[in-house]
Amino acid sequence: MAPATIATTIIVDLRSDTVTRPCADMLYAMVTAPVGDDVWGDDPTVNQLESEAAAMFGKEAGLFCPSGTMTNQIAIKCHTSPGDECICSDSAHIFLYEGGGMASNSGVQARVLPSDRGLISAKQIAAAINSCGIVYARTRLVCLENTTNKGGGTYYSASTLREISALCKARGLALHLDGARIFNAIEASKEYTPLDLGQIFDTISVCLSKGLGCPVGSLLLGSRDFIDRARRARKAMGGGIHQAGFIAAAGLFALKHNIKRLSEDHERAQQLGNALSGLSWVEKVEPVETNIVIVTLRPPLEPTFMQEQLKRRGLLVSSLAAGTIRLVTHLDVGQDAIDWACRVLKDFVPEDDVKDEAVSTAIY
Amino acid sequence: MAPATIATTIIVDLRSDTVTRPCADMLYAMVTAPVGDDVWGDDPTVNQLESEAAAMFGKEAGLFCPSGTMTNQIAIKCHTSPGDECICSDSAHIFLYEGGGMASNSGVQARVLPSDRGLISAKQIAAAINSCGIVYARTRLVCLENTTNKGGGTYYSASTLREISALCKARGLALHLDGARIFNAIEASKEYTPLDLGQIFDTISVCLSKGLGCPVGSLLLGSRDFIDRARRARKAMGGGIHQAGFIAAAGLFALKHNIKRLSEDHERAQQLGNALSGLSWVEKVEPVETNIVIVTLRPPLEPTFMQEQLKRRGLLVSSLAAGTIRLVTHLDVGQDAIDWACRVLKDFVPEDDVKDEAVSTAIY
Amino acid sequence: MAPATIATTIIVDLRSDTVTRPCADMLYAMVTAPVGDDVWGDDPTVNQLESEAAAMFGKEAGLFCPSGTMTNQIAIKCHTSPGDECICSDSAHIFLYEGGGMASNSGVQARVLPSDRGLISAKQIAAAINSCGIVYARTRLVCLENTTNKGGGTYYSASTLREISALCKARGLALHLDGARIFNAIEASKEYTPLDLGQIFDTISVCLSKGLGCPVGSLLLGSRDFIDRARRARKAMGGGIHQAGFIAAAGLFALKHNIKRLSEDHERAQQLGNALSGLSWVEKVEPVETNIVIVTLRPPLEPTFMQEQLKRRGLLVSSLAAGTIRLVTHLDVGQDAIDWACRVLKDFVPEDDVKDEAVSTAIY
Amino acid sequence: MAPATIATTIIVDLRSDTVTRPCADMLYAMVTAPVGDDVWGDDPTVNQLESEAAAMFGKEAGLFCPSGTMTNQIAIKCHTSPGDECICSDSAHIFLYEGGGMASNSGVQARVLPSDRGLISAKQIAAAINSCGIVYARTRLVCLENTTNKGGGTYYSASTLREISALCKARGLALHLDGARIFNAIEASKEYTPLDLGQIFDTISVCLSKGLGCPVGSLLLGSRDFIDRARRARKAMGGGIHQAGFIAAAGLFALKHNIKRLSEDHERAQQLGNALSGLSWVEKVEPVETNIVIVTLRPPLEPTFMQEQLKRRGLLVSSLAAGTIRLVTHLDVGQDAIDWACRVLKDFVPEDDVKDEAVSTAIY
Repeated sequence: MAPATIATTIIVDLRSDTVTRPCADMLYAMVTAPVGDDVWGDDPTVNQLESEAAAMFGKEAGLFCPSGTMTNQIAIKCHTSPGDECICSDSAHIFLYEGGGMASNSGVQARVLPSDRGLISAKQIAAAINSCGIVYARTRLVCLENTTNKGGGTYYSASTLREISALCKARGLALHLDGARIFNAIEASKEYTPLDLGQIFDTISVCLSKGLGCPVGSLLLGSRDFIDRARRARKAMGGGIHQAGFIAAAGLFALKHNIKRLSEDHERAQQLGNALSGLSWVEKVEPVETNIVIVTLRPPLEPTFMQEQLKRRGLLVSSLAAGTIRLVTHLDVGQDAIDWACRVLKDFVPEDDVKDEAVSTAIY
Repeated sequence: MAPATIATTIIVDLRSDTVTRPCADMLYAMVTAPVGDDVWGDDPTVNQLESEAAAMFGKEAGLFCPSGTMTNQIAIKCHTSPGDECICSDSAHIFLYEGGGMASNSGVQARVLPSDRGLISAKQIAAAINSCGIVYARTRLVCLENTTNKGGGTYYSASTLREISALCKARGLALHLDGARIFNAIEASKEYTPLDLGQIFDTISVCLSKGLGCPVGSLLLGSRDFIDRARRARKAMGGGIHQAGFIAAAGLFALKHNIKRLSEDHERAQQLGNALSGLSWVEKVEPVETNIVIVTLRPPLEPTFMQEQLKRRGLLVSSLAAGTIRLVTHLDVGQDAIDWACRVLKDFVPEDDVKDEAVSTAIY
Repeated sequence: MAPATIATTIIVDLRSDTVTRPCADMLYAMVTAPVGDDVWGDDPTVNQLESEAAAMFGKEAGLFCPSGTMTNQIAIKCHTSPGDECICSDSAHIFLYEGGGMASNSGVQARVLPSDRGLISAKQIAAAINSCGIVYARTRLVCLENTTNKGGGTYYSASTLREISALCKARGLALHLDGARIFNAIEASKEYTPLDLGQIFDTISVCLSKGLGCPVGSLLLGSRDFIDRARRARKAMGGGIHQAGFIAAAGLFALKHNIKRLSEDHERAQQLGNALSGLSWVEKVEPVETNIVIVTLRPPLEPTFMQEQLKRRGLLVSSLAAGTIRLVTHLDVGQDAIDWACRVLKDFVPEDDVKDEAVSTAIY
Repeated sequence: MAPATIATTIIVDLRSDTVTRPCADMLYAMVTAPVGDDVWGDDPTVNQLESEAAAMFGKEAGLFCPSGTMTNQIAIKCHTSPGDECICSDSAHIFLYEGGGMASNSGVQARVLPSDRGLISAKQIAAAINSCGIVYARTRLVCLENTTNKGGGTYYSASTLREISALCKARGLALHLDGARIFNAIEASKEYTPLDLGQIFDTISVCLSKGLGCPVGSLLLGSRDFIDRARRARKAMGGGIHQAGFIAAAGLFALKHNIKRLSEDHERAQQLGNALSGLSWVEKVEPVETNIVIVTLRPPLEPTFMQEQLKRRGLLVSSLAAGTIRLVTHLDVGQDAIDWACRVLKDFVPEDDVKDEAVSTAIY
């Protein structure tokens, strides 16, 4: 009996929390949304989403964008001038996974700091601020990611955030939050609310299409003046869209219904982490803080091999670094699916390789 | 009897063909579309839309983007290097209405040519190509808009397009088509098919959210290699979106159902043009070629005044230049609406101003 | 008797006023200048030149740069942000002859205006300022060239300059002067002094290596704060040089000795213009205002042919546009040389072509 | 007895080897150089310098620029497209001391590697090359600095250079040498010649104004095609200068006379290092490899305090990092000056502070 049979009936996608698809209720909200032409400022649903999200974080205004990369890139552009420097973690999404956009969109140099699972400290930042001599790039912006992606779902403590915020204010630096998974951080830390974060950060990117389950979209939040300039930048980058209300409606739905349940994702990630610990093919499981599980494979196992093997068993995982795989829980993976995934992982023996390529292709 | 009463019951929006909203069938296609995470290449609906559109124009590949501005800006970026020059009309959308993106996104200088209602000739282009001396920006790209927006819906003849294409090939220049309203041009000219255009142009932007009636989206078409580079550029600009299939499904629907009917828009624009000709407050009506009507107001009438006046009567129009207003027909404006709009325009007397601001606000 | 014999004994270079070489006194000033490392701010000669030039134009500070292109490009960069628009003449050096630098260095879009021999008016500028809508590039800067290069040495009247300055102040636009030949304009117009220009313009480029006869260098003048930012921009563009005092000394010498004599260049250009008027091969001579003479050739004469023909006779001229040649007087062309040049031009018969290529090569 | 009296008679400037001033013979070569207008390609001295330097390193062509920052920045620009990534050391001049130019001039992201006193390895580089996925910046260029500046004058071994070169060729990456002090490296290593380096690197920056003693200038060397593109880039950045021959002549003189003597600078740096080792105020002296000495101060001594103290005694030093000072030997510091400097350093007692500010100002 080939494992393929299992896979044809069950596929659990733990590659990322971006893979979620709208539930029926979200779809209903989408198609019944009042829309207009947002390029003319006429879309009531977009306007409502921008206001609600801004209010939630205590910011004056919001801007709806097609992606989190765009909200981050626009934030960088509007905080800086070409030749400025932006301090971030060496595993920051803005540095690693946005196509070099910081340099190509804004002419800004990244000053990356070695991080503790994606997290950096006020002390490190202070040491990395350039003096004002003309040979140096002008340090202008600090970007934090919370929770971290490559860092494995880690989150900042309130005290670190406040310390960094105070440093930035004292040194005249802007502070931006890449909040791709900010609600995971809020849920897990229990130390800060959205309003707290609004006071700590000058601008905030809030992604709707990760843990919140929307198909598309991200919000940039900040002061009225900043968002006015961001809106202009969005236009030139091609992010202005017409009847955006259809997708904004999903965002409104998600802000209302999909935040509280994030603790379930965290519990399931914990369950995955526990299941993985001590398995024969696992070298190490990073402590699970939110919905991401990073597993170091026992050498000489390779991520591509493991991804292929698990895919044949119906389980999709990803990899962000050599020697490791990543599993991410999300609202399309319920308790049964996690239980099943844990069994697959526990039953897995690396040697147990299915040789039939035709079968594996069919599964996917 | 205040005109306001009319407006409360009927509003016809002729500001732009971007204001259309999906019909029930398009919405149905959207919510039932199979989707995946396009950032992982998994969205079957996006993949289908990109292939179908590319095949329609005889191109190897396509790229779905959130807006026509983005497809144009990516095309410019992928055809050029910073310091290059792009030749276009002085009324080109890429020059006037994309926030200076050609310079800020790609470091490219616009060489704009005086145009005949938005159209430029091979002879003009030839004269504007810089010599190769190092003091000159390197001429690298020609962009044509067809139909023209600010030009008033004019379109190129097949012979002009072929002449410009031959010139570009001979001089080693890339040729891009801003096809925001390309199906209007194809429908009206009857001289060229999508496949013809695919041979004439190196790359083509096809907008789905104007005459075709989609809420969101535009396609960039070109060679496989070009689109691979474009996909990379899209990522860095923030145009990569996750479950894009919902909006791509509208595009597939539109390509199937909403092209042939564009001739109706053209006839209705013609009807509007005829109705406007000879009215007391009209100085001149530009010849109507497709779905756009440009009206020069009799001085000292001002566009903002006229827009306000007509809005109070339930008719929304726009203005792209001093002293003129623009009316655009589209699939949300049926025959009854046009008949009614013609009556409003004919009955209109500039002096007949509604003074009650409260009423006019309520209308809108 | 081949005309080549003449050329072997006399060569007069009227291609440009950039071809001048330092006289013995200027060279002496150069090699005896006290110098230091300007990158450390230690060069007293550079510091003196920057202060003297700034004081001359009533500006707070100056910045010495290797070229006029650099002073212009830095001015544009420091007045703007990417995506802004700069209004200039369609024959402006910054648009035509700086390699597309406005776009590639600063991400700025050029809005070029049709000009009257290089000159533009306040009325034209006012009409070209974009509205503040987000689809438009933000108009931020106006650049004037005085005298004009491609315009043929024309200069602005004081009243036009004041009108444009008032407009820019009223509309919040910066106003930069490309003063590549500003002392020619001052000398010829007699309507304004350097101090007047310092009040009219926010920033001024003053080129030392054209009419003033220095081998290298240009100055950017402005407020203290602006120049501080310009110094930073110069560093990143590679314009910071170490013992710059050697070349700055030539600038100090030129400001002292080579300004008053510019009227001689103007008289000699006038003499050339008079000599050319009515010649059989001349279609038209543009009115000579300063030290540049633009001659339209009688068709089918071509500039390259004429340049080659005159070169064989010992006279070097240039061409900036189809069908025309340009002659520029400068401090290396004295009265005898001009008299001789006038004779060569008058004696010239286009048919009188020397066929022996070997000879012509030897001349050059 | 104030130490100030010493300083009024002797000042030794060890801040950098950029502070050198031309000797009489170099000045003579400068003022007697045949010159022309290099913007028209007419300057024979510039042409000769470009050819000679290119031939020395076995490259097809050379480009003379005002500064080493410009040659580096142009190299980066011509090897890359915006959004590409450049791998370099975390102490690289191009990353730290060129004003963020890599990002602002070229839109290129720096991927900096932790270094061993400025040196990086092939293994590190290999691990830092991004995969080809579209979310990653495209790795395109590796830049090495040899000798290193902030690294303290260290140099690469021939085997490391060959290993890195082989890696770059295998992975399709360009390899640029920031040769600000390349002749120091050649002199010290004795393992490679200029011709060897020409084969190892695609392009080379050679600075003339550091150890070689020229007042101004740097050369970029590469293939004919590359230099043609670099010439175009230089124009747009404002690096094209007219009678550049005056300063190019200094370069020709330096290549002939000032290379062999660099070993003297290295010996004197060694002498300084020996003198410093074991002094009460010195924590550590980095091993001296060429002409740069890096001294870690015994806490709580601060560089600014030490610089001020030594300046009062007639000795100028610089600092590139917290807690350290830097001393650089060069051709304006002969044996007597070094002997004297060693005495000053040995006699120095940090507590021995001169309080009279008026005196110290006078010294400087």
